[in-house]
Amino acid sequence: MPGSFVDKSECTHRTIFPGVDIHTAAGREMMLSFVEFEPGAIVEAHSHPHEQAGIVVSGRGRFIVGGVEKDLGPGDMYIIPGGVVHRVIASPEGLKALDVFHPIREDYL
Amino acid sequence: MPGSFVDKSECTHRTIFPGVDIHTAAGREMMLSFVEFEPGAIVEAHSHPHEQAGIVVSGRGRFIVGGVEKDLGPGDMYIIPGGVVHRVIASPEGLKALDVFHPIREDYL
Repeated sequence: MPGSFVDKSECTHRTIFPGVDIHTAAGREMMLSFVEFEPGAIVEAHSHPHEQAGIVVSGRGRFIVGGVEKDLGPGDMYIIPGGVVHRVIASPEGLKALDVFHPIREDYL
Repeated sequence: MPGSFVDKSECTHRTIFPGVDIHTAAGREMMLSFVEFEPGAIVEAHSHPHEQAGIVVSGRGRFIVGGVEKDLGPGDMYIIPGGVVHRVIASPEGLKALDVFHPIREDYL
């Protein structure tokens, strides 16, 4: 990473599900992933060994984490333990969130 | 932590500098800290061994990290390595940001 300030245009960009794009940047032990969902887009149920902490930046979405469902909006936060299955469905207005992973997700570099 | 969804009202609340309040929640390896600056409030220059990754949620602020200055606004992200001195000055409109630390900041539990 060139400096402490993360310019989205310099991040790694991936489309991880239809209508769900991420921009990622890795530090030493944590990875930032800015996630943008088109209206109604879905992150399908999955899990990973990495701990995932995050916040909804704008829009809304239904988060299903370990079988527990909750609608989250701007400012709502979450910490998903490693290994817990989670799924997210964006509202009709779409959803933007920041995820932070530890350790680094090598698959998102 | 009782569940994956972090309710701000259940977070630990601290005033870390005049006009700068945080609400924190700890996972296993990462800690969330939602930071709210009153207009013009300042986080004075400091450092810690923890890596710090974050995003500006609303408002604006001047971030000085390792001697490099930048004005950040909504959606702007940063990764501050452990040990690097940083300082933040909120704009006249105030500033809200999410910080994520690794490892857990025991002083914020």
